[in-house]
Amino acid sequence: MTTPNILFIMYDQLRFDYLSCAGHPHLHTPNFDRVAARGVRFTNAYVQATQCGPSRMSTYTGRYVASHGACFNGIPLRLGEMTMGDHLRAAGMGCWLIGKTHMKADADGMARLGLAPDSEIGVRQSECGFDPWVRDDGLWGQGPDGFYDEKRSPYNEYLKSKGYASDNPWADFANAGVDEAGDIASGWMFTNADRPANIREEDSETPWLTREAIRFVDQATGPWCAHVSYIKPHWPYIVPAPYHDLFGPEHVPLPMRSDGERADPHPIYAAYMGNKISHAFQRDEVRDKVIPAYMGLIKQCDDQLGVLLDHLEATGQADNTVIVLTSDHGDYLGDHWLGEKDMFHDPSVKVPLIIYDPRPEADATRGTVCDALVEAIDLAPTFVEMAGGVVADHILEGRSLMPWLRGEVPIWRQFVISEYDFSPTPTCAALGLDPREARLFMLFDGRWKLVHSEAGYRPMLFDLQSDPQELQDLGADPAQADQINRLYDLLGQWGRRMAQRVTRSDDDIRAMRGKSARKGILPFLYDGSEVPDALTVKYRGPASARYDRD
Amino acid sequence: MTTPNILFIMYDQLRFDYLSCAGHPHLHTPNFDRVAARGVRFTNAYVQATQCGPSRMSTYTGRYVASHGACFNGIPLRLGEMTMGDHLRAAGMGCWLIGKTHMKADADGMARLGLAPDSEIGVRQSECGFDPWVRDDGLWGQGPDGFYDEKRSPYNEYLKSKGYASDNPWADFANAGVDEAGDIASGWMFTNADRPANIREEDSETPWLTREAIRFVDQATGPWCAHVSYIKPHWPYIVPAPYHDLFGPEHVPLPMRSDGERADPHPIYAAYMGNKISHAFQRDEVRDKVIPAYMGLIKQCDDQLGVLLDHLEATGQADNTVIVLTSDHGDYLGDHWLGEKDMFHDPSVKVPLIIYDPRPEADATRGTVCDALVEAIDLAPTFVEMAGGVVADHILEGRSLMPWLRGEVPIWRQFVISEYDFSPTPTCAALGLDPREARLFMLFDGRWKLVHSEAGYRPMLFDLQSDPQELQDLGADPAQADQINRLYDLLGQWGRRMAQRVTRSDDDIRAMRGKSARKGILPFLYDGSEVPDALTVKYRGPASARYDRD
Repeated sequence: MTTPNILFIMYDQLRFDYLSCAGHPHLHTPNFDRVAARGVRFTNAYVQATQCGPSRMSTYTGRYVASHGACFNGIPLRLGEMTMGDHLRAAGMGCWLIGKTHMKADADGMARLGLAPDSEIGVRQSECGFDPWVRDDGLWGQGPDGFYDEKRSPYNEYLKSKGYASDNPWADFANAGVDEAGDIASGWMFTNADRPANIREEDSETPWLTREAIRFVDQATGPWCAHVSYIKPHWPYIVPAPYHDLFGPEHVPLPMRSDGERADPHPIYAAYMGNKISHAFQRDEVRDKVIPAYMGLIKQCDDQLGVLLDHLEATGQADNTVIVLTSDHGDYLGDHWLGEKDMFHDPSVKVPLIIYDPRPEADATRGTVCDALVEAIDLAPTFVEMAGGVVADHILEGRSLMPWLRGEVPIWRQFVISEYDFSPTPTCAALGLDPREARLFMLFDGRWKLVHSEAGYRPMLFDLQSDPQELQDLGADPAQADQINRLYDLLGQWGRRMAQRVTRSDDDIRAMRGKSARKGILPFLYDGSEVPDALTVKYRGPASARYDRD
Repeated sequence: MTTPNILFIMYDQLRFDYLSCAGHPHLHTPNFDRVAARGVRFTNAYVQATQCGPSRMSTYTGRYVASHGACFNGIPLRLGEMTMGDHLRAAGMGCWLIGKTHMKADADGMARLGLAPDSEIGVRQSECGFDPWVRDDGLWGQGPDGFYDEKRSPYNEYLKSKGYASDNPWADFANAGVDEAGDIASGWMFTNADRPANIREEDSETPWLTREAIRFVDQATGPWCAHVSYIKPHWPYIVPAPYHDLFGPEHVPLPMRSDGERADPHPIYAAYMGNKISHAFQRDEVRDKVIPAYMGLIKQCDDQLGVLLDHLEATGQADNTVIVLTSDHGDYLGDHWLGEKDMFHDPSVKVPLIIYDPRPEADATRGTVCDALVEAIDLAPTFVEMAGGVVADHILEGRSLMPWLRGEVPIWRQFVISEYDFSPTPTCAALGLDPREARLFMLFDGRWKLVHSEAGYRPMLFDLQSDPQELQDLGADPAQADQINRLYDLLGQWGRRMAQRVTRSDDDIRAMRGKSARKGILPFLYDGSEVPDALTVKYRGPASARYDRD
């Protein structure tokens, strides 16, 4: 069977439940649904971190955050940490980047090992193991201390070439509207979320990146994996016409929250409920303006996905291209009195995951859903298996999803893990925590969700069977002590996992056994009768003759 | 205060209790005692693994085995893993190797990153971060599959230059005697342990390495750290005259063991009690021959330590040289019905540690003992502090011992950890375990010692207060359930430690806080009133003018 190409599409901050195939009441996403109808939709897919950078580093390395160490946006991924690009190239498949990774290169590590950042190896180490077709992380915020992202922005360069006259057209056009006085109305401000972005729709970020993806596909020789990584529907929440007024307050679901959540909240949850963005999303007028814009951004993503799918079909590549649709995390949008992500309720930590495999071996599962406990780190080993490679499971901590795509029911993991290290945030300082204390671990076993804090607070606990909306934190309930202990035992088991023996595989280990005896290491001989003569190298002739004893 | 030099002396397989300063009834070690009389002797120093390779990789990296991943002899230390050499050179101190490291270079990693093994960086990466003055791992066993160690042996070359006519004089002279027929009597065979090694004492391994150390010291310009790393008293158990008959059966302590240990042993303990070397050491005639040879080897080490100390004093360097004496693990010698190491009773996992700091700040503690819970990974940060550097505690998991040397009583760790991954051993296969299951974790809190097995067996538990000889395994005692749960909570805490965020320090983390807002990332603005104007970059002029809307 020929090796397929892999179109690995990631959206940014796309909630698992904002697709029509996932049951959204108002948002129709026929192109996501079109892939789901041909493939498998995973309904329990969890990211290993709720923040872009660490979540992506886990997806790209196939390893937990505590294993690769890049635990917050802007923390470099250590030099030499292998990624899907390294594994796929070893299996004979190219691996390309079109869009965002949020990866920070380990410049100190490269300097220490004398690796030139502009060498082929250096570039791949700097680009998270991808060969960059176009790298644009999509956050060109600019303030008194300069740009948040110091790299060049191919997207800003594109806008300038199209006549958008500004030193930062991303901010002034793509992510801003125009107010009544004809002045800039920044997309950073939620009051402007219902304005059309001040840009031609075709020049906005999602269509631009789609065209880059098509440019790549049309020249690529396979087998290839293309990571098409959109910044949207990530904030700033503003979208060009006509998407800005497809939806209105009447399409905004009621917030999933209860007064009980504010009664006696976990201290860290309380701190996040009290931050600026949460306060904003606790206001109906914010949700009524922002969520329709968020839905418009998703609708635009769906239309552009259609453009991409149509192009693959028109060029005869659809039958040989695996399509993967997912996200790096969700968005609270006011649920649980929160904005952004940070915590571990499903709207934040659960993501959409749809995989279409055109090969006959996946025919048995077309159009089905799978509720297995899936982690984002499963994608890298899945791709390695699709590429025909051997999964290096001493490095990759995820597991290939191919058995599920074939309709098999493998023995599977008991729980998923997600982590959040908020030590670089003001919240850590506000709570008076040391950096090492500002770490959260989520463990979910399909019913029970435990959130452990390293700061010595009680855990959070949710029973998603009796409380699917996660409105009742049972972490302080003495009646749950046994349940909590059971989940802590599982977390302890995870903590002891073998994550760093990356230089030797399990097969290498098996092959080592008994080798030293055959190389003359015999620290167990009483008189030599324990081993065959063949194992002992005998001297020929009298010892006394062999040096001048003078 | 001037930075001292550091003479970091490691012996191999030296038990904590085979020194007169540690109370050995028959073995007089005046030179170890001489250093102890001027420094601090640590009575609770534990290695992070009971096998040479992983124990040393932990000592050299300052990190737990599960953190650096080199969990068994011959498993390469991953490229880029920083060692004391890297940290000390950054602090302005050279770091040199004279003897053994048992380090295996990560050739695949170097190839992947295009690092030439013979470049300066490549050599340091291959030599565990040391600059090699002389590297000799001291195990030149040879069998039908060739040499155990494929590197060149400077020691064998030395012997050949001295006229020892053999292709492996290490085996045929340094580690063999002569039998009654005048033929080779291999030191591998315990029956030969009472014979004198077939070599001039001055040409045996310990004096040879001592002379190399003196050659180094005499030409070195400081500040330097010299890791003088002896292979002895490690097996083969044979020693040249006169050391071969300084001790006899009358000096052999009774084995520390009980029939109760064999009644219902933990399955893994049982497996090790049943292996060849344990069977040998269960025989009195073996202990009566081997232990006197082991004592003779230690006596020779002590005499050679005297030579080195006298030389430092004669050359005026003693007053500016820190002296550290330790070992990479112990030796059961028949205690607990075991030979070798492998398990976690004190004779195996506890090591001697004596530190002499000539500087006035250590005057308060001269000649004292310290019973703090010390780990071998504490040495690297101790040396960094001695070198005047800042301890990179996001990489180094140990803690500087300087406070103890100054006579302070710092807030200190609650427990020590040691690990053993026996997956590459025939024992793993004999027990029918998968590689990931063949992992043991020891946690000792100063009184209670828990040994967890990843294979699903019950834990082992010892109360060293009521049972200092560790003869009674309480791991199956239901009455100890709470104690075991408490220790598992501590092990869980250790498992969640932050070990891989090696590219950013805690100070870097604190400095990151709030930075993104000043770089224009403002995902929380309702109408802009939340932040000072200074944080928002305003456009000058009407938006409508800024591109041709055609």
